[in-house]
Amino acid sequence: MSKTLKGIAASDGIAVAPAYLLVEPDLSFSKTSVSDVDAEVARFKKVVEESTKELEKVRDKAKESLGAEEAQVFDAHLLFLSDPEFTGAIETEIKDQKVNAEAALDETAQKFITIFEGMTDNAYMQERAADVRDVSKRIMAHLLGKKLPDPAAIDHEVVVVAYDLTPSDTAQLNKKYVKGFVTDIGGRTAHSAIMARSLEIPAVVGTESITKDVKDGDMLIADGLDGDAIVNPTDAQVEEYTKKGEAFAKQKEEWKKLKNEPSVTADGKKFIIAANIGTPNDMKGVKENGAEAIGLYRTEFLYMNSKDFPSEEAQFDAYKEVIEDMDGKQTIIRTCDIGGDKHLDYWDLPEEMNPFLGVRAIRLSMQYKDIFRTQLRALLRASAYGPLGIMFPMIGTLAELREAKQILAEEKDKLVKEGVKVGDDLQVGMMIEVPAAAVLADQFAKEVDFFSIGTNDLIQYTMAADRGNDNVSYLYQPYNPSVLRLIKHTIDGAHENGIWCGMCGEAAGDDIMFPILLSMGLDEYSMSATSILRIRSLMKKINTEDIKELANKACFVSETADENKKLVEETMKKLNIND
Amino acid sequence: MSKTLKGIAASDGIAVAPAYLLVEPDLSFSKTSVSDVDAEVARFKKVVEESTKELEKVRDKAKESLGAEEAQVFDAHLLFLSDPEFTGAIETEIKDQKVNAEAALDETAQKFITIFEGMTDNAYMQERAADVRDVSKRIMAHLLGKKLPDPAAIDHEVVVVAYDLTPSDTAQLNKKYVKGFVTDIGGRTAHSAIMARSLEIPAVVGTESITKDVKDGDMLIADGLDGDAIVNPTDAQVEEYTKKGEAFAKQKEEWKKLKNEPSVTADGKKFIIAANIGTPNDMKGVKENGAEAIGLYRTEFLYMNSKDFPSEEAQFDAYKEVIEDMDGKQTIIRTCDIGGDKHLDYWDLPEEMNPFLGVRAIRLSMQYKDIFRTQLRALLRASAYGPLGIMFPMIGTLAELREAKQILAEEKDKLVKEGVKVGDDLQVGMMIEVPAAAVLADQFAKEVDFFSIGTNDLIQYTMAADRGNDNVSYLYQPYNPSVLRLIKHTIDGAHENGIWCGMCGEAAGDDIMFPILLSMGLDEYSMSATSILRIRSLMKKINTEDIKELANKACFVSETADENKKLVEETMKKLNIND
Repeated sequence: MSKTLKGIAASDGIAVAPAYLLVEPDLSFSKTSVSDVDAEVARFKKVVEESTKELEKVRDKAKESLGAEEAQVFDAHLLFLSDPEFTGAIETEIKDQKVNAEAALDETAQKFITIFEGMTDNAYMQERAADVRDVSKRIMAHLLGKKLPDPAAIDHEVVVVAYDLTPSDTAQLNKKYVKGFVTDIGGRTAHSAIMARSLEIPAVVGTESITKDVKDGDMLIADGLDGDAIVNPTDAQVEEYTKKGEAFAKQKEEWKKLKNEPSVTADGKKFIIAANIGTPNDMKGVKENGAEAIGLYRTEFLYMNSKDFPSEEAQFDAYKEVIEDMDGKQTIIRTCDIGGDKHLDYWDLPEEMNPFLGVRAIRLSMQYKDIFRTQLRALLRASAYGPLGIMFPMIGTLAELREAKQILAEEKDKLVKEGVKVGDDLQVGMMIEVPAAAVLADQFAKEVDFFSIGTNDLIQYTMAADRGNDNVSYLYQPYNPSVLRLIKHTIDGAHENGIWCGMCGEAAGDDIMFPILLSMGLDEYSMSATSILRIRSLMKKINTEDIKELANKACFVSETADENKKLVEETMKKLNIND
Repeated sequence: MSKTLKGIAASDGIAVAPAYLLVEPDLSFSKTSVSDVDAEVARFKKVVEESTKELEKVRDKAKESLGAEEAQVFDAHLLFLSDPEFTGAIETEIKDQKVNAEAALDETAQKFITIFEGMTDNAYMQERAADVRDVSKRIMAHLLGKKLPDPAAIDHEVVVVAYDLTPSDTAQLNKKYVKGFVTDIGGRTAHSAIMARSLEIPAVVGTESITKDVKDGDMLIADGLDGDAIVNPTDAQVEEYTKKGEAFAKQKEEWKKLKNEPSVTADGKKFIIAANIGTPNDMKGVKENGAEAIGLYRTEFLYMNSKDFPSEEAQFDAYKEVIEDMDGKQTIIRTCDIGGDKHLDYWDLPEEMNPFLGVRAIRLSMQYKDIFRTQLRALLRASAYGPLGIMFPMIGTLAELREAKQILAEEKDKLVKEGVKVGDDLQVGMMIEVPAAAVLADQFAKEVDFFSIGTNDLIQYTMAADRGNDNVSYLYQPYNPSVLRLIKHTIDGAHENGIWCGMCGEAAGDDIMFPILLSMGLDEYSMSATSILRIRSLMKKINTEDIKELANKACFVSETADENKKLVEETMKKLNIND
């Protein structure tokens, strides 16, 4: 029987393939006494052998599909399996304590983990704790006759099903075979959703129950266009969705023709469509999708993918690489936005009751000025290699902005005095994401070169609804007239003061939001690279004269988010524009 | 040597008295083996005797100063001390395990606590766990030769010094002898600050280090007017502050003459100054300070001071009592605002990453409609006894407001059909505390009878700064032009649509904020009862013509909170108005 689950459309496209459950089995066990300890040791040895063979297979497949570096972790696991200090300790435990292998494994593994984690001055040994955990899990699964998911070993087309997908889960997936994601939790701004868009894999998130409603190998359709997941579809459904997927693929081919076109409306008005990136690795997508600028380079990843604060030199290299690669087009780099939901192992910050309302982004930079100055120096040096915009996140008061600008000016002076070259066309801007900054946009606009509206945070603060909390997701409303009024006020404040205004939240690439933003006169639209050509295509079809009333209607006539969605849909229909 | 600590002025007045440290000593111990177990048992028995004598004294003093009910908890402690099942188990542990009394006590107490806490179907027995904890702490202190603070036994004038003050700490304080509070943490809206104002005890909070800088018995001045704490003051300082305290007391006497006066400006404009209350017990302060209305009756306490959801009958009684007591003046009752930083033992809600941005207040009511309907029925029935306003907290969208109003209408219909009397002059209003609601005030105003601006939350969301997080307290800015613009927009939106607008956050009773709010034309000012006469006195001195430009200057000319503080101070100075 076919069953349709309603989720959130998180990444465009249609996938039709068997489900692959990336869900860990229950590995709980009972501790029992054994009388025949030799038989128990033999059982354990056999399971170690099986685990070794399985791991070798996984390692080989991972090497083949993901590359040698990604496969290394499995070599580390194999080392433990063949280490007599580890397996021998478990055998001794079975013999001495006369307990079953499960209990001996668990006890011994815990001991090893405690020892490794206790080596706080040796990061390498600390990381070995994770290896012990993974290897023990595998042995335990074999002892209990259960199967662990091995995403690295996937060798046929699948739709991956999970409660949620973590960065380490996705790192192990072979993109060749993974045709789609369907998850229980998450929204359009969840990690798994952003990852799916960057990989161009169709995804449906927030279905609530897919991990319970589908079994491994069941046929599954992920409709990332409309947010449906269909378990055990009928033949007619398979045909229908395959066609829908093909039509979408065709449309994508059409969009690709726009790669080197400018971003213009039907009446010839020119705007900038830019890309959001996290690391220089994302530049491939930027090029392939014809971004006219980098509207947001999130520098957090430099800090997150590092074992300690990245040096000025490492940062300089990463910034310079992107700026040079952009070949004369502007790159907007945002200073570090750590805190909130992002943490670093090496940066021990106090626990907060409400981290999204706590010390994050520029607030943290102001408390750790040395770290901030290092980043600013790297940015200033990189500015010699192309047009750079430096952007401060989470500015809420003019005092904060002025202090950040002052520190930037000091570092620039120092560099100039040291004879280091700094770019001539450096712009300094700020994110508009704290409601206070949106409300005072007219005042802030007098002191920066540009704004970039961060809708993800602006919405969560304006609606007082955590964007990661599923229980209040109905209040996370990009189309709410209050949010739109703040956006309009920001754009107007920018233009009245002669500066440009962009947007780098998910909303800029949203089909409903885009016509409203265009009607408001937003200058720059920065989005996931994979959304660029779709929005460029849409822009080409819209005559700004036809939608000039849209902004005011959306802000001052509509009373709810739903009304605004309908308003845009009806306007587009009336204009015969279908995306 | 005298030392001055700068804190936050949290409750008016000056206290000069020896410090009383409400700080728990370090009760850590080492587990050791004892050879002479009989001597150890004897040592333990002696300590139990000492503890018993001490507890009896504390109990008697508590009975005398706090009343029999408050003293009961000490009877429960004494019961445990005399219970051979408890003390005997510890003696057995000493004898059997040959360990010191500290270790035996700790081990046995843990066992008892685990058992009591495990009785999840017996609330009475679960509460005994707290008794075991308290009694064990007392015995441990005696074993280690340390002294526990016994706030219930204070019998001379003191200034209480604490890291923070919890509700249970304050319940044990004898108000007769406690002349002031000084704490390490907290702001003007912390529990300890609100409590101090309601008790009319001078308080300085957020000094950061008072618990380290003062010793028990050191002379201490708490200047709740300017936020200073002076440790070991000189004779000259004692004299100076005693005079300052007397002058303030005199001013308070002057204010008292305004108790039965109306709230009018120098040019004869009339406004309402109302009181915020938590329980019917607060009505004494309401009467003594001549409140013209209850602007906010926080119903959370009904839920927090209860072992289960309060029944419709219990709620009806509590609401009716206040409404009748107000004798024809309006009472605004806010529906339950649980969630965020307020939790109930009997309401098991999911943990949230950012509770202030989660399911709280009306959002929770909408998820638990039965509980909401019970409260609405109690409110509707109470409305027959005087002019009532029902107010919904944390409304963010029109959809939420409409749903809440719909449910209220349904319950009213049911009651009317049942023949139950419901008041004729019932008003329905909403809090303006989510930025989205402030931004859309003009739209919301069409669907309610009144607004009440909740500045505590409106500020924290607008500035994206947790009001309980000391590390971002510099961003919690009531005078920030962005906050003031949202307040002005709310008041204007109300007036353009013919409804009245009040404020029930701490800001309404603030000397700097008040002239700005008056200039904006705010209709109702609801505050701690103890602030009413001070604000009424200030209102009498201000001619609204003199400050008519103030609102626009504060919103559109000033750029920072500091500028606004200066703006008001200079305006008041120019007008020769000193509060």
